[in-house]
Amino acid sequence: MNISSKKKTIAVDMDGVLADVEAQFLSWYERDYGVKMTKDQLSGLTEDTAFPEKGAIHRFARTAGFFSTLPVMEGAVEAIKSLSEKFEVYIVSAAMEFPLSLSEKLKWLNTNFPFISWKNIIFCGDKSIINTDYMVDDHLKNLDNFKGKTIMFHAFHNVSYHHHTRANNWKEVVALLEKEA
Amino acid sequence: MNISSKKKTIAVDMDGVLADVEAQFLSWYERDYGVKMTKDQLSGLTEDTAFPEKGAIHRFARTAGFFSTLPVMEGAVEAIKSLSEKFEVYIVSAAMEFPLSLSEKLKWLNTNFPFISWKNIIFCGDKSIINTDYMVDDHLKNLDNFKGKTIMFHAFHNVSYHHHTRANNWKEVVALLEKEA
Repeated sequence: MNISSKKKTIAVDMDGVLADVEAQFLSWYERDYGVKMTKDQLSGLTEDTAFPEKGAIHRFARTAGFFSTLPVMEGAVEAIKSLSEKFEVYIVSAAMEFPLSLSEKLKWLNTNFPFISWKNIIFCGDKSIINTDYMVDDHLKNLDNFKGKTIMFHAFHNVSYHHHTRANNWKEVVALLEKEA
Repeated sequence: MNISSKKKTIAVDMDGVLADVEAQFLSWYERDYGVKMTKDQLSGLTEDTAFPEKGAIHRFARTAGFFSTLPVMEGAVEAIKSLSEKFEVYIVSAAMEFPLSLSEKLKWLNTNFPFISWKNIIFCGDKSIINTDYMVDDHLKNLDNFKGKTIMFHAFHNVSYHHHTRANNWKEVVALLEKEA
C-alpha cells in the first residue's frame, strides 16, 4: 500500500498504445494501394519494411486526418480512467516530427479521453527529458533511454525484443501497474 | 572543463523568455483599449492585476495571431545559438492551456529559431515531469518544482522574488551558463 500522498507518475504513449495506428495503417493501405494485409503479416517487421510500398507509413502520418481519425486502442479508455485513480497519468506523444499532428492529436484526446486535463498532456520531439516513474510505450527508442520502470506495449515492430516487460493489451498494463500503486 | 561527451541539458521557456510577451501585451492593450502603458508600470504586478481591464491578458492569449506575431526577446537568437554549442537546449513551453497556440508556437520557432530541431521542442501542460540539468523560465510555478539548477528570467511579475538566480537579459543567462558548461 502506498502511504505517500503524492501519486506515482506514468508517461503513456499515444500512437500504438492509446491509438491503434496499426489498424489505421492497414485500412489506409488497402484504401490507397488496393492490397488487404493483416496484423499477422506485419508481425516482426519494422515500420519501414512492413508494407510493400516504401514510404507509405510516412506519407500517411503526414496526411491531414490521419491522427484525428485513429481508432482508440481496445480497453484504453477504461484503463486510463482506472489508472488515473491511483497514478498521475501523463500522455506523452512524440508529435513534433509531424506538425499537422499537433492539433489533431489534441482534438483526438479531447474527444476520446475528455477526462484527461491539458495539464497532463506533453507533445515532444524525443522523450529523453521526460521524468516519470513509469513509461508505457511501444517504441524501443523511447523505452531504452528511460530511467524509470518500463512497460513495452505490444506492436508488430517490437515482437522480437524482450528486454522490457511486455504487455499485450491494456488489461495486462493495468494488472502490472496496479501492483505498483 | 567538461570532459563528458554528453552535453548538459537546458530547458528554455518561450513566453517571457524567448518571446517578448510583455511587449505584445502592452501593444495589444493600447490597440484594443486605447490606453498606453509602459513596462515600468507593470513592474511588481501579477498577470491578473497588471492591466486595468481584467481578463485582457487571457483574452489576448486565446486570440488567433497572438503567439505567431510575438516579438523575439532581445539577444535570444544569438544566445540560443551560442548555448547550443555547449549544451543540449530544449525549448519547453506550457502551451496546452491555449490549444490555438500549438501550431502558432511551432511556426514561430521555425521562423525565428530555424536551427532548433523538432527533436528539441516540448509543448506541455505543467513542467513538473521535465528533467534537464538547467531551467531558464520566468514563472515561479515552473522554477519552484524543478529539480535541477534554475535561472529566473526577469519579468514584471517576478521582480519581488529572490529565491532563484536572476538574469535580467539573455547576456546574463549566457554568462551564468557558460561557467557551467
